[in-house]
Amino acid sequence: DAQYNRNVPFETSPQAIRLYYFYNHWTMQAITYFFICIDLSLALFEEPALFPLPFLATSIAEVLCLTAFFGRLVHFAKVTPQRVFWKDTKNICVMLTIALTLIDLIIYGSLETVNIHSVRWSRALRPVFLINFPESRQIRRAFRSIRNTLPDILYVFLLFMFSVLIFSLMALKLFGDRGLKTVEGSPYFTNILEIAFELYVLVTTANSPDVMMPAYDFNWWYSLYFITYIIINTYIFMSVFLAVVYNNYRKHLKNEIRKLAYLKRHKMTEAFNILKVKMDTEFVVKEAPWRQLVKVVAPDISSSHLELLLRICDEGQKGYMDKTNFLRLADLLNIQVVTINVKTHPLETWLPRVYQSAASLLIQKMVRHRIFVWVYDVIILINAIFIALDEKNPLISYAEWLFLSLYIVEILLKLYTYEPRAYFGRKQFWNWFDTLIIMAALVAMVANATIQSARKYNSQQILDIVLILRILRLLRVIVSIQRFRVIVTTLINIGPTMLTFGGLVLVVYYVFAIIGMEVFHGKVLFFDPNFTAPGALVCGNPALEDSIFAQSRYCRNNFNDLASSFIVLVELTVVNHFTLLANGFALVTHQVAKLYFIGFHIVVVILIVNIFIAFILEAFFVAYSLEKSEVETAIEKKIQELG
Amino acid sequence: DAQYNRNVPFETSPQAIRLYYFYNHWTMQAITYFFICIDLSLALFEEPALFPLPFLATSIAEVLCLTAFFGRLVHFAKVTPQRVFWKDTKNICVMLTIALTLIDLIIYGSLETVNIHSVRWSRALRPVFLINFPESRQIRRAFRSIRNTLPDILYVFLLFMFSVLIFSLMALKLFGDRGLKTVEGSPYFTNILEIAFELYVLVTTANSPDVMMPAYDFNWWYSLYFITYIIINTYIFMSVFLAVVYNNYRKHLKNEIRKLAYLKRHKMTEAFNILKVKMDTEFVVKEAPWRQLVKVVAPDISSSHLELLLRICDEGQKGYMDKTNFLRLADLLNIQVVTINVKTHPLETWLPRVYQSAASLLIQKMVRHRIFVWVYDVIILINAIFIALDEKNPLISYAEWLFLSLYIVEILLKLYTYEPRAYFGRKQFWNWFDTLIIMAALVAMVANATIQSARKYNSQQILDIVLILRILRLLRVIVSIQRFRVIVTTLINIGPTMLTFGGLVLVVYYVFAIIGMEVFHGKVLFFDPNFTAPGALVCGNPALEDSIFAQSRYCRNNFNDLASSFIVLVELTVVNHFTLLANGFALVTHQVAKLYFIGFHIVVVILIVNIFIAFILEAFFVAYSLEKSEVETAIEKKIQELG
Repeated sequence: DAQYNRNVPFETSPQAIRLYYFYNHWTMQAITYFFICIDLSLALFEEPALFPLPFLATSIAEVLCLTAFFGRLVHFAKVTPQRVFWKDTKNICVMLTIALTLIDLIIYGSLETVNIHSVRWSRALRPVFLINFPESRQIRRAFRSIRNTLPDILYVFLLFMFSVLIFSLMALKLFGDRGLKTVEGSPYFTNILEIAFELYVLVTTANSPDVMMPAYDFNWWYSLYFITYIIINTYIFMSVFLAVVYNNYRKHLKNEIRKLAYLKRHKMTEAFNILKVKMDTEFVVKEAPWRQLVKVVAPDISSSHLELLLRICDEGQKGYMDKTNFLRLADLLNIQVVTINVKTHPLETWLPRVYQSAASLLIQKMVRHRIFVWVYDVIILINAIFIALDEKNPLISYAEWLFLSLYIVEILLKLYTYEPRAYFGRKQFWNWFDTLIIMAALVAMVANATIQSARKYNSQQILDIVLILRILRLLRVIVSIQRFRVIVTTLINIGPTMLTFGGLVLVVYYVFAIIGMEVFHGKVLFFDPNFTAPGALVCGNPALEDSIFAQSRYCRNNFNDLASSFIVLVELTVVNHFTLLANGFALVTHQVAKLYFIGFHIVVVILIVNIFIAFILEAFFVAYSLEKSEVETAIEKKIQELG
Repeated sequence: DAQYNRNVPFETSPQAIRLYYFYNHWTMQAITYFFICIDLSLALFEEPALFPLPFLATSIAEVLCLTAFFGRLVHFAKVTPQRVFWKDTKNICVMLTIALTLIDLIIYGSLETVNIHSVRWSRALRPVFLINFPESRQIRRAFRSIRNTLPDILYVFLLFMFSVLIFSLMALKLFGDRGLKTVEGSPYFTNILEIAFELYVLVTTANSPDVMMPAYDFNWWYSLYFITYIIINTYIFMSVFLAVVYNNYRKHLKNEIRKLAYLKRHKMTEAFNILKVKMDTEFVVKEAPWRQLVKVVAPDISSSHLELLLRICDEGQKGYMDKTNFLRLADLLNIQVVTINVKTHPLETWLPRVYQSAASLLIQKMVRHRIFVWVYDVIILINAIFIALDEKNPLISYAEWLFLSLYIVEILLKLYTYEPRAYFGRKQFWNWFDTLIIMAALVAMVANATIQSARKYNSQQILDIVLILRILRLLRVIVSIQRFRVIVTTLINIGPTMLTFGGLVLVVYYVFAIIGMEVFHGKVLFFDPNFTAPGALVCGNPALEDSIFAQSRYCRNNFNDLASSFIVLVELTVVNHFTLLANGFALVTHQVAKLYFIGFHIVVVILIVNIFIAFILEAFFVAYSLEKSEVETAIEKKIQELG
């Protein structure tokens, strides 16, 4: 169990173990995730909804989810000792959230029956379920890392806010009495709170030259004030934030790894204590129970792999192993030993005569040759030119079929030459990529052709997909260039961990989206551009008249449903036109709404984006200086020893 | 000589050494810098000028500068061996630039006499002088670091451009035929070059939601295309750029340090070979020549410091030292030994009776007490409130005098209590800061008061300065908080190195500004906002009619003189509204002008800003994990040994 870095203390009675296995069974986990997904996606159907459903339906779904979560928790409580269960904040959190959600549901439902519209505040708590179930320990780790960074960040942030305030005061004194006007004609820098907001936004660079222009037009010396501000706050302080986050990230990464190693060791020691027998002066584990243990822990291990592990652990081949060697088992099991089986091609076994014939061998030699790759690179480039040309020309649209068939021929030839199981090996990302893209393109094009011939019109969605697939094929060129491959491989390798950030961002976005939807929904309306409703130019809200928000046609950027909210939050993460959005939503509600946007900026841009950057930096540094880990070296040594 | 990390090979004849000393004399260096400054600032006076001067005057000044540079070079040639001199690219560069500048001057001058206006292209070469004189090795090191980073950056950049092109192609196919319109009403995403530019700009986030809005309005699924693009190119690729730059920065920092250490060792060995005498089986340096050497190298060293060094180098106190110990001299000399002299207060020597009286001792005790600091922190906070209040009120303007006198009393009290030379010690940054700010404020306020009483009006400039000084005083609060002090100290410590970046940025800005001035000057005119000239609303250029550039009143952002150009370049560095500026200048010239802006973005934002961030990150990591260096520890050990 220590193999998977789980650290769930559990009782060691046979019944508890059975329950524990059942608890960790993949169906149970899948069901939990399914209910979490349902619970989170309820926001799509609740008011303000993308696909509206009656309150009764969503509330029943929610109660169902809550029951499932509660059941899972009860199951977990049966597995762990009572004392441990009640000490774990995770469980307390989940229970509290379930209780709060139920209370909120009841209040909201009863108020709804007497037609009073209240706030479904508990919806912002839903991500708690995603975070606090033992399955999502990666996201929890990321959150812990953020929590640990907070104190350090806080001091830098206070200093930064102090600097912003000092500069605001300076701006008020320097520009306040000048009677300057902004482009929109409103007074420039006369209110300390407005100045502080503008200067905070200047740190995000979102209002960069605009905020300076009135003062700069008045006297060009004043631009020095803004340049100093930008150097100190935008460049230096933002870098310091990154430095603090990065430093903490590295520190806590080390701590987490150390802690995990300790827990693993602790559990392995417990396992050793169960299996040990006394021999001479020391306790050892015999070969037979060891084999049994490995079989239980890793049922699909190959027998040659098992033998290898045994040889490593039992160095003297004495038929037993001591504690030190036993403890290495968990690490050893985590290493994927690539069992290189030089398998023969299936065609060779089925049709040996044909496959070994001169013509066949020539084809194989051709395919293996470097020129084969080059020819296909040239084909891809020609294809790129054809794509860039106008596709209305029927010749070009026929050429597309030609290219597709050429690619299919390539894959078939490669499958003919290389062993299929090796070709579709686990690490052969690009082969998988190729085949999937080509297959998908084939299916989509055939589907489109049948629809076209049957109904005489092109399905827009399918055409779009075909187009994207066609262009994605061009990515293949990257593989041919060695230098590119290193970068791309690193990027692909960090892909899975990036999903953790996806989860983290999802949680934060969800909370902010729910709050945003409660506060801003229905304030900004989007009208179809071709439809000329009376309020279309002011997004259906007279407060936006003459605002840049309406002039820039940002009506679609609203909080009227979950999808739109997420897109607005993405735009806020990118930071550009942050002011425009913040001011727009402040206009339709109240100036206090700007705090929502500043809060979002602090949490997402200053914290999470910096952690993301730190993560990518670290990943590339590791990729640049990658050395094999110690345990792996031990295996390699053993393999070399064994011949 | 090795002490200062100079690595100028020079001949060892007495005459050459005298010349070399003269070459390195501070007056000669100051003169060189003076001429470099003159040469660079010529751009202020040349057409297009901030302060116009006739061509004759500027060209004479330039020829003078060139003569000075040439003289300096000849001097240098006399000092170094011929072979080495001609191998050094620095010298070749300087000579070539002098020649090119002269040729350009002659061509331009002769064309000017027949009234043909040509381009003064050699002006862009002027920073070569700043970079290539041996005095500015820091900037040169930064440039070398950039040059070394280029190959690695190039591959990432190619991959990045490839990705941008793939996405452009996709955008063309997906959105090109939809007949969508941008907010300005121009067709949306129909030209592959325009798309590539827009997508490149999206990486800078400068056109973030705008570029997406038409497609998003059409169908919200299309926003996924832009979100994918932003995640891949804006977040991941930009972080990879930072990672590559940072990784190279660290690597080359290490290399540079290693190379310097090697060169230093080499030169110390040479010095050892000159001074050595044979003793028994080994060569050693006797104490007398060693003392002489140290006296020559570091004339202002205190005798106790000299003794300390001698003790460290000559461990056995044998009256001589071997090679290993001799080589340590250079490092040892670089360490500043803080000679803590518990000097008596001058007042104590002059008026011992008064200074040691009970009242005086009470005052000293008071000042040293923690409450004294707190009281002044409270005073500063009250002062902050007074500043925030309206200063039109005469009471408040009198209160300002009260605060000023309180601060002066504070400084005087501190000077009374602490030893003045210790108070104004080298490391006492905040004491210096305090005193200078208060003195400057006093001078400015007195000056203002005299002007006011004499001529009955407030000088705007002086008032502004008083205001800024008054607010800067508030910074003092930071010192009282321990946590803030660490961050601020680190920031102050990296201040000098930041000047290197200042030099680097200056060089790049200068080149881009000169090019920008040649290309764009006079295309965009600025009119005083109160003055209603006919072309004021279109910045004096009909091509800008209806453009957002003119609508946002960006007329002041032009390349009509060096100062304006620098400010525009700062705005481009900040990146926000990058499109707006690039489009504006493309409108008044040609679409090709956008390349200038993209080039600037690549050089400044992708390279230099990332190096700056890397530098700050590294500085903070070092500050967080600072351990005393080995040599310093050796000194400390010795000091402890000696008692």
